[in-house]
Amino acid sequence: MSDTPELVSDLLDGQHRALARAITNIENRTEGYRDLVAALHEHTGHADVIGITGSPGAGKSTLVDKLAKSYRDQGLTVGIIAVDPSSPFSGGAVLGDRIRMGSNVGDMDVFFRSMSARGNLGGLSTATSDAVKALDAFGKDKIIIETVGAGQNEIDIVKTADTVAVLVPPSSGDDVQMLKAGILEIGDVFVVNKADLAGADKTFQELRGMLELRDDEEGDWEPEIVETVANTGEGVDELIDVFQSHADWLDETGAREDVERDRYAEEIRTLLRNDASALVEDEIERRGGMDDLVSRVVERETDPYTVADDVLEPLRDCLDE
Amino acid sequence: MSDTPELVSDLLDGQHRALARAITNIENRTEGYRDLVAALHEHTGHADVIGITGSPGAGKSTLVDKLAKSYRDQGLTVGIIAVDPSSPFSGGAVLGDRIRMGSNVGDMDVFFRSMSARGNLGGLSTATSDAVKALDAFGKDKIIIETVGAGQNEIDIVKTADTVAVLVPPSSGDDVQMLKAGILEIGDVFVVNKADLAGADKTFQELRGMLELRDDEEGDWEPEIVETVANTGEGVDELIDVFQSHADWLDETGAREDVERDRYAEEIRTLLRNDASALVEDEIERRGGMDDLVSRVVERETDPYTVADDVLEPLRDCLDE
Repeated sequence: MSDTPELVSDLLDGQHRALARAITNIENRTEGYRDLVAALHEHTGHADVIGITGSPGAGKSTLVDKLAKSYRDQGLTVGIIAVDPSSPFSGGAVLGDRIRMGSNVGDMDVFFRSMSARGNLGGLSTATSDAVKALDAFGKDKIIIETVGAGQNEIDIVKTADTVAVLVPPSSGDDVQMLKAGILEIGDVFVVNKADLAGADKTFQELRGMLELRDDEEGDWEPEIVETVANTGEGVDELIDVFQSHADWLDETGAREDVERDRYAEEIRTLLRNDASALVEDEIERRGGMDDLVSRVVERETDPYTVADDVLEPLRDCLDE
Repeated sequence: MSDTPELVSDLLDGQHRALARAITNIENRTEGYRDLVAALHEHTGHADVIGITGSPGAGKSTLVDKLAKSYRDQGLTVGIIAVDPSSPFSGGAVLGDRIRMGSNVGDMDVFFRSMSARGNLGGLSTATSDAVKALDAFGKDKIIIETVGAGQNEIDIVKTADTVAVLVPPSSGDDVQMLKAGILEIGDVFVVNKADLAGADKTFQELRGMLELRDDEEGDWEPEIVETVANTGEGVDELIDVFQSHADWLDETGAREDVERDRYAEEIRTLLRNDASALVEDEIERRGGMDDLVSRVVERETDPYTVADDVLEPLRDCLDE
């Protein structure tokens, strides 16, 4: 805890080792990580945060590598957080902080870290947005959140980005049909990757049809579809232009502020929910533990509502004072 | 609130009108419903609670009607709660408390009520288990929870029963494959309904194969598979026998107590989680509301972790005293 101020100043100083340690502390919820993230907050707000999701095999990793390379060629710095909500294993722990992509090996201005559900009791989306803050405060220009898997976890994670890209592989069209409604709703940019494969045009058309049915309102961002071949880099620059258009749109319309406000409100509520649960668990322990409470309910000496009232009574009383 | 004691005594007296009103208060979270459920608790613990789930079209309603008729023929009283987590509309509100099944019309010893997500801010599973308590305290011998839809909500609801039956329609086998792992795990009894249709035997065999893969431990209940034709009533008595075997097994092995304890612990935690969230929302309001807190985070005057600490500080302080 006591070394948090030093860690913060080393990170703000641009030391990659401090950045790596900060993200490790965030991922593992090491004591002092709250103070760390709290201290970093005022230095954030400068990076563009891009979320990239899509089914396994869509080519996310390759595309992210190519995006990072293009940004680097423009002289920009990049941070990548790859999150797998379905895996209990952290690639970060196995790989350390090594840089994944061959094209960027030894280039410390592309910082790569993978995170998993391991140890993230407070939720992966909180850990992800905290890690993004560390990269942002460090001064990375572009931050990419890459997430694998499907479902609500993935959506929560990718929603912490300013711009969300959904990768769709070309196919018989089944995959487009399989796109969960939630994923379709949150995408700002849809990427038909492997566009050199048969079926890409059909996928493009079907995607366009589904997006027209999307419940967008007047003045909303109109989702764009971009075709890429991540292996060769084809379409990557166009994709970067579309990301920039979306970033400009966020600024020009004031939408960025709305998105930011919604995100902070969600962050605060999530923290409060988790912290309040922890307080309640402490109070249960203080009252002899859950086993004892349950025994009294089983014996019909009390009931669940009365137990809940009793446990929360001291909290209610002191708020009323 | 003041009429709660009267409502409780009327219900315990066997007045169907009081039972109907109690469940309406529970469904709508009418003021005083907590005192009501708390007062009923000590009169519960006598009914067998059976949960029935399965995909739409599996024949749940027909089977439940036939089960109710068979129990009535044995001189037993029955309460049915039909829950649709996916619907915002309450059949209860539309149908009142009328008895659904033709075979039991006018028979007040079969009490039927449908419930929906409408108004159930605290969660449908809490409302369902509260309604079950009302039926149990009233003196119903058999309580059936029928739930439509799929997913975690359905699982949470059906888990409030002592015995869980999963209905599977005969098919090409696709439906068996589609059974969510969660549903497969919680079933005590699997019912291949419409067993007169082609494919029933195949479904039976596939189900048996999947259940053998289930991660049951030595001493666990071995899930049974029963074939029924709800339309004609075929197999319904056998199903009732299997329900009884499961109830006996729960008693003989002491498993009933474990299940009951787990359920009460879950009930208490759910209530505490909801109540603590409400307290936290009050405290946020007291501090000028979420909008104001978010503005200060956006302006970098503070950050989400500091906000969470500030909001919870009075609660922490008074627990430490």
